[in-house]
Amino acid sequence: MRSERDFLGEVYLPDKAYYGVQTLRAVTNFSITGHRLCREFITALALIKKASANANMKTCLLSETVGRAIVQAADEIMAGKWHDQFVVDPIQGGAGTSMNMNANEVIANRAIEILDGLKGDYQLISPNSHVNMSQSTNDVIPTAIRIATVRKAAKLNRELAALAESFDEKAAQFRQVVKVGRTHLQDAVPITLGQEFKAYADALGRCIRRLEQAAAGLKEINMGATAVGTGLNAEPRYIEEVVRQINFLTGDQYAPAANLVDATQNTDALAGFSGALKVCAVTLSKIANDLRILASGPRCGINELYLPALQPGSSIMPGKVNPVIPELVNQVAFQVIGNDQAVTMAAEAGQLELNVMEPVLAYNLFNSLRILTNAVNAFNYKCIQGIQANKERCRENVERSLGILTALTPHIGYENASLLAKEALQTAKPLRQLLLEKKMMTVEQLEAILSPEEMTKPGIAGKEYMALACRTGSTLNGHCQQTPD
Amino acid sequence: MRSERDFLGEVYLPDKAYYGVQTLRAVTNFSITGHRLCREFITALALIKKASANANMKTCLLSETVGRAIVQAADEIMAGKWHDQFVVDPIQGGAGTSMNMNANEVIANRAIEILDGLKGDYQLISPNSHVNMSQSTNDVIPTAIRIATVRKAAKLNRELAALAESFDEKAAQFRQVVKVGRTHLQDAVPITLGQEFKAYADALGRCIRRLEQAAAGLKEINMGATAVGTGLNAEPRYIEEVVRQINFLTGDQYAPAANLVDATQNTDALAGFSGALKVCAVTLSKIANDLRILASGPRCGINELYLPALQPGSSIMPGKVNPVIPELVNQVAFQVIGNDQAVTMAAEAGQLELNVMEPVLAYNLFNSLRILTNAVNAFNYKCIQGIQANKERCRENVERSLGILTALTPHIGYENASLLAKEALQTAKPLRQLLLEKKMMTVEQLEAILSPEEMTKPGIAGKEYMALACRTGSTLNGHCQQTPD
Amino acid sequence: MRSERDFLGEVYLPDKAYYGVQTLRAVTNFSITGHRLCREFITALALIKKASANANMKTCLLSETVGRAIVQAADEIMAGKWHDQFVVDPIQGGAGTSMNMNANEVIANRAIEILDGLKGDYQLISPNSHVNMSQSTNDVIPTAIRIATVRKAAKLNRELAALAESFDEKAAQFRQVVKVGRTHLQDAVPITLGQEFKAYADALGRCIRRLEQAAAGLKEINMGATAVGTGLNAEPRYIEEVVRQINFLTGDQYAPAANLVDATQNTDALAGFSGALKVCAVTLSKIANDLRILASGPRCGINELYLPALQPGSSIMPGKVNPVIPELVNQVAFQVIGNDQAVTMAAEAGQLELNVMEPVLAYNLFNSLRILTNAVNAFNYKCIQGIQANKERCRENVERSLGILTALTPHIGYENASLLAKEALQTAKPLRQLLLEKKMMTVEQLEAILSPEEMTKPGIAGKEYMALACRTGSTLNGHCQQTPD
Amino acid sequence: MRSERDFLGEVYLPDKAYYGVQTLRAVTNFSITGHRLCREFITALALIKKASANANMKTCLLSETVGRAIVQAADEIMAGKWHDQFVVDPIQGGAGTSMNMNANEVIANRAIEILDGLKGDYQLISPNSHVNMSQSTNDVIPTAIRIATVRKAAKLNRELAALAESFDEKAAQFRQVVKVGRTHLQDAVPITLGQEFKAYADALGRCIRRLEQAAAGLKEINMGATAVGTGLNAEPRYIEEVVRQINFLTGDQYAPAANLVDATQNTDALAGFSGALKVCAVTLSKIANDLRILASGPRCGINELYLPALQPGSSIMPGKVNPVIPELVNQVAFQVIGNDQAVTMAAEAGQLELNVMEPVLAYNLFNSLRILTNAVNAFNYKCIQGIQANKERCRENVERSLGILTALTPHIGYENASLLAKEALQTAKPLRQLLLEKKMMTVEQLEAILSPEEMTKPGIAGKEYMALACRTGSTLNGHCQQTPD
Repeated sequence: MRSERDFLGEVYLPDKAYYGVQTLRAVTNFSITGHRLCREFITALALIKKASANANMKTCLLSETVGRAIVQAADEIMAGKWHDQFVVDPIQGGAGTSMNMNANEVIANRAIEILDGLKGDYQLISPNSHVNMSQSTNDVIPTAIRIATVRKAAKLNRELAALAESFDEKAAQFRQVVKVGRTHLQDAVPITLGQEFKAYADALGRCIRRLEQAAAGLKEINMGATAVGTGLNAEPRYIEEVVRQINFLTGDQYAPAANLVDATQNTDALAGFSGALKVCAVTLSKIANDLRILASGPRCGINELYLPALQPGSSIMPGKVNPVIPELVNQVAFQVIGNDQAVTMAAEAGQLELNVMEPVLAYNLFNSLRILTNAVNAFNYKCIQGIQANKERCRENVERSLGILTALTPHIGYENASLLAKEALQTAKPLRQLLLEKKMMTVEQLEAILSPEEMTKPGIAGKEYMALACRTGSTLNGHCQQTPD
Repeated sequence: MRSERDFLGEVYLPDKAYYGVQTLRAVTNFSITGHRLCREFITALALIKKASANANMKTCLLSETVGRAIVQAADEIMAGKWHDQFVVDPIQGGAGTSMNMNANEVIANRAIEILDGLKGDYQLISPNSHVNMSQSTNDVIPTAIRIATVRKAAKLNRELAALAESFDEKAAQFRQVVKVGRTHLQDAVPITLGQEFKAYADALGRCIRRLEQAAAGLKEINMGATAVGTGLNAEPRYIEEVVRQINFLTGDQYAPAANLVDATQNTDALAGFSGALKVCAVTLSKIANDLRILASGPRCGINELYLPALQPGSSIMPGKVNPVIPELVNQVAFQVIGNDQAVTMAAEAGQLELNVMEPVLAYNLFNSLRILTNAVNAFNYKCIQGIQANKERCRENVERSLGILTALTPHIGYENASLLAKEALQTAKPLRQLLLEKKMMTVEQLEAILSPEEMTKPGIAGKEYMALACRTGSTLNGHCQQTPD
Repeated sequence: MRSERDFLGEVYLPDKAYYGVQTLRAVTNFSITGHRLCREFITALALIKKASANANMKTCLLSETVGRAIVQAADEIMAGKWHDQFVVDPIQGGAGTSMNMNANEVIANRAIEILDGLKGDYQLISPNSHVNMSQSTNDVIPTAIRIATVRKAAKLNRELAALAESFDEKAAQFRQVVKVGRTHLQDAVPITLGQEFKAYADALGRCIRRLEQAAAGLKEINMGATAVGTGLNAEPRYIEEVVRQINFLTGDQYAPAANLVDATQNTDALAGFSGALKVCAVTLSKIANDLRILASGPRCGINELYLPALQPGSSIMPGKVNPVIPELVNQVAFQVIGNDQAVTMAAEAGQLELNVMEPVLAYNLFNSLRILTNAVNAFNYKCIQGIQANKERCRENVERSLGILTALTPHIGYENASLLAKEALQTAKPLRQLLLEKKMMTVEQLEAILSPEEMTKPGIAGKEYMALACRTGSTLNGHCQQTPD
Repeated sequence: MRSERDFLGEVYLPDKAYYGVQTLRAVTNFSITGHRLCREFITALALIKKASANANMKTCLLSETVGRAIVQAADEIMAGKWHDQFVVDPIQGGAGTSMNMNANEVIANRAIEILDGLKGDYQLISPNSHVNMSQSTNDVIPTAIRIATVRKAAKLNRELAALAESFDEKAAQFRQVVKVGRTHLQDAVPITLGQEFKAYADALGRCIRRLEQAAAGLKEINMGATAVGTGLNAEPRYIEEVVRQINFLTGDQYAPAANLVDATQNTDALAGFSGALKVCAVTLSKIANDLRILASGPRCGINELYLPALQPGSSIMPGKVNPVIPELVNQVAFQVIGNDQAVTMAAEAGQLELNVMEPVLAYNLFNSLRILTNAVNAFNYKCIQGIQANKERCRENVERSLGILTALTPHIGYENASLLAKEALQTAKPLRQLLLEKKMMTVEQLEAILSPEEMTKPGIAGKEYMALACRTGSTLNGHCQQTPD
């Protein structure tokens, strides 16, 4: 048991604790979520402390002895050690001062140990004067949030890319599966299942690019801004050097913000990134909804797709299997959309030189990134890759549907097509049969026009065949002038 | 052309304008939405001005001549006249001062005319000193918002009640239509279409009660609060009297807020009401989604319901008819949910003695009420009342589905039921056939258990029949002990 | 290590695991948040299992031996044991089947142990047939959510009541502290700090009542609904009995839903409750904002309040102390508002007989309740109870402000008051001095009118004194006719 | 009066009506908002119809006579004529079919007139066959939304650029105005008012770039997609040509979507754009909040800024002027954030080959663009350009504040600085006086360190002066080693 003091008095800390009095105050003051800071954020804090120590050494503000000990302590944290010493709640007052001090205290005490000192001997290495040298919560925290976000975003994008690839593979696999297209949930013209899955792949590609673009906006950091962005007490040489160090350590290209005052008070880049996550969630949710519709049934629904069965679906209905992974994706999407609302309100609540709501903003951003990453992974490996087409059902539906009338419209006219639709619905007869019975088309013409290939690409289906028929006078009716070439 | 002055200088007003310089300033300053104040709000402002004039006369603050002219002018507005003179934009800075002054100026000038004066002769009747006497924007506007909301809410509730009644009627009509129930969009146990429609009716009933409860919270008004709720310059006798007048004029039971300071700065009752609207929107959207699913097809979807056809659904697909009214309901629901977000942010942004964001709050509240009322009306008369069941399809689906296995489970055991489910899916054979083939059930037993009536009410379907069979030794298997009575 | 099987094959479970194969499947399938089910929800699940076992025994569906073992296992969980065995992620597909099965499996295995069986020997006691007897995920989960919400809500309401009481106490303490009221952040008429704090107390009182009202809507449960609300396979006597048991165990008054189909598919009551939480968050955030404004400074802000200092506010600015608890409250409010958005979307996404999005809905509801409860507690004990008034600053501001002109307006006229305002702003002279210099008021009159007591209650300040002066002819000007009694 | 027919029967239309039966059906079916389609959207529809007619003529699908008449009619609408004939409600079911048909019918009837035909003689020119040739609602409406959005966005960006420029000008004007910086609403280190305004300018610059980036995502259009994106019935040559025509007419660079199926069903690009608008609203709201805080007072607030007075602020408080334009900006921001919620839900609700919720999505997008454009204009011309600094107040506050201690910390140490802070707060003495009394600094040193110039740029204030003093031995204390170079 050791003790530390601040202006409120003395506190006692467990011997094993690397954190100190300020961390302890924060733990007492902010006991809200029961959660911890995320791994990438802790790592980003350590990385910044290391970069700062290096920069401070380079600009002769910090002695090599102290600096190297700080660097070693930070390295250990970056390697995954001491994360259990980061005990503050992610939702906290004070704009992240407690997160910053938690890092400062843990690193100071670990560095003290490295120099064979006793924890708490801040004369040797001080959390404020040494570990936090040339820094301020107001530049450290916004920078750490950006670094952690960029890293987590890269991970999400890898999962999204893998998912898009799976959709692409399925698109190739389902290239020939012609099925009914649906608009307004009503039968429309034919489409291939491959085209549907390709659309999912391409929509996800756009999500990735949107996230990359939004992440690029996070590459401006405000190290050196100190309290309000004016840089008071931070040496210009330090500012330059610390960013260089961060780039070296992250392997990324961060730049000092052109306007440090602006960069310290505004969180629009983070809100913009959250917005991009939200749109990604919207896209995923739409896809999940589609899959749930297409796999509905098995007997009394659409039933054009088989999703892999992952677990029994009901304790009282034998044989029931539910689309649990798409349902998961929907729910994660709703959470991400809700989180974006919290981010938006936090971003709007910035006042004057600082946005003190950054802790809750970061908490939601990190949460959205984590759950989206996990959900995309599950979506890919536990659902999409195992999807099978119900080809028979797809084929039957195309034949049964009236959507193919649209392909016939250029050949028989909209009026005739409408009358056929009505008769088909009343008599429940297949369209092909009606057309043949009425001698409106020959079998060959129907083959030419209603060819899956023809009906699912741009242009008038069967146009060439019909044009030929027209030229050779073999049409059953006079509609050749309706399909001018 | 007449002129008026304020501290910014002289302005010119058309001869026909009843509004004055402050309204004109507001029109210039706030040109945002292009929309006007809604009818109920204008009427509520006039009602308050009339109630105040009466109260001021009763407490001898206002001469009878002036007071009566104000009352007459207000009466005309309440009767629908001069609404074109309310020209300020509903989104405005100043916490509604411009709305209040628009009313004060129009009433003053009209009252001046009534007294044979010339518009603008505010010596005769002043917008501030006479029409606004004993009042402040900060009590008039919150009160007018409440009165208008309560009135619009009553209208919405009448439409909701009519819609619930239609669902009830359809529930009765569809009482015997047994169909497949669906959970996770997967076939589940049978249900009647009537039960589904009754659930819609009952959910709407709850919406109505929730709205009524929330509206009750709006019956506390802050007339007499003046600037900050302390009531400075408002006579206690006036405060009492003006509420009595408002109750007389509205025929409703408003009460003065127990704490006028609280009532002047907080908008939680309005935010709570908007929240109730949001839940109503959620309920309606869920119903609209269900109807779109159940009416999907016609040939390649669920197709258990026919929605009335209102307009051609496609310019290129002959015979296509879309569920346009449910789609409308969904969209209105999204708008109401979005509006609630704006309301929430406005409510949160109150500061100290006033919430200056009330104009945008009221704008969204009124908008939500109007569009929900219109959408519920369309839903009822253009969709629900014309819905027809596709009884054949419903019946076929029940037979085809495996959900009826659940009814058999108590009689044949979960294990056997699961095996049957598997076999049925593989062989595509109807369950009845399989059961008979396997001699697991007799035709009579199946009739007893799979009776629609039995399967759609609480309890073990066919239990009494089976118990009898058990007692008489006529069972095919030994499961009678599984259905103890 | 023991093994269990399902249709996907065999899995191995640690010897110590009370959960079984279905739980394990869920852990593999749904690894999203890294969080666990909350304590109250686990307890509610156990309570329902106990109530069901009792009801099943009473209706002779379950043997006493098995039933009693289940009851004992459930009792242990309700007492806080085995919570570590609830390992499924709170966000999950399958509408909560995995939560229900986690409970069923843990209770079954523990009950088997109680009967001296070996874990996994489901012949003895089966998770499905015995623990889940007469139940379905679709009635257990909605009911458990309601019970847990009601309990957590009671806790929140206790904290809110304690906070309101603290505000009431402060209101009494600050009864005499007259200060400037502010609207639009601009100086307005005087108010007491006590009145401001009383408004906070009263607004919170309304939050409590709104939450109670919304919680009352959760007292309808759908036990016995089974799969889709029709109650198939649940005995009517069981339905009646299980609710009686739940009421006995909770000490609360739940009722079976009048329409079980409706109750199984709709989540509007939960969404309505979340909406009430949101309005509560809005109210708290507004109060937190006010306190941050009033405590701004210390030297260059409003500085009328002293918040307790909890921790050093800055690593680089000596002596800085920040309003960390109000900032915490704001952030928690933003989170709750964001959570409500997720709840809204989940509620809207219900389809046909079930809302499969209930897991994410419950997750957000429970999260909002927990963080709000914690934040309200911190707000009360770490901030409000230690607030001190800066009485000198308050008094100075009242004297300095022009808001007191409003109190003089009835006596000197609006025109004169406006001119005085202008002169005061230009000359920077105190208003009292100007009035005396201009011989518009005597010292005695000013005392009478500008008495704090007079200016902060309804009516015309100093009216009686002035009326007397008027009658005795001792006024300095002729305005007595402007203050008629 | 003329009549038209559809499958529901005959309807009568006023002689002057250019719209036809389908428009009339829509007006009857969708009477929701009472609003009309916005100008840019009507113009975009006409532009597409013209582009299509040209493309159809070029590809010989449409005769020159009919095509030219259509082009002329479209030209007239693009020039602002016949907008009163667009009478459908912007919120409508049917995915915009009614908007498309409204355009088709108005253009057809006007083109018929141009060819000296009688309105309604669709044999001459048919709304469907001719005006809508090669098109579908499902490609026309998404394309028109994009074109209108891009145009409105350009307008908004011009207003934002002008506003940013005004902030830049004010930044230059206030370059020398040193004032207290504030974090957590607490006094922090000095900053210039110019730096604050420059931060606003730069944040807006980022908004503009974000909107441009998001608008770039709207430059992919799906003309030629027809019903579901497969392009059935649209000639490949037409697809190519129609985009060329659109580019010619808009002067912009649109491209055909790489995947027409994807482009027809997904609205993520629109949702992404709405998200960018939301972030812009957040930024504007933050600035508006700052200005309201800085202008608070006049006597009992911060009062460092004077906003232009636009209208009397109160009917009962003489001389009160409120920050009405910033309040307006806040409210518009809340509306935009709420609208984004509606957009998000609409985007998420897309199903399979189409998103039928596009009408409400577009309605909110257009609404956000309009009100933001208007609000930014008002912000600029009615507020920002007239802002004046209260230089005296700013200077006084800097002197009074303890924030300047941070500048002294490198010279006197954090400990001493903290003690001074405490003493200053207790004794209410200015810091300079204390430092001189205690002989911790000379007048010259204070001048050097506390120079506004020094304190508001990066680095240790007065470092060079102190280093010199250190070298010459003229320091009062031994802190020179604390400021290593």
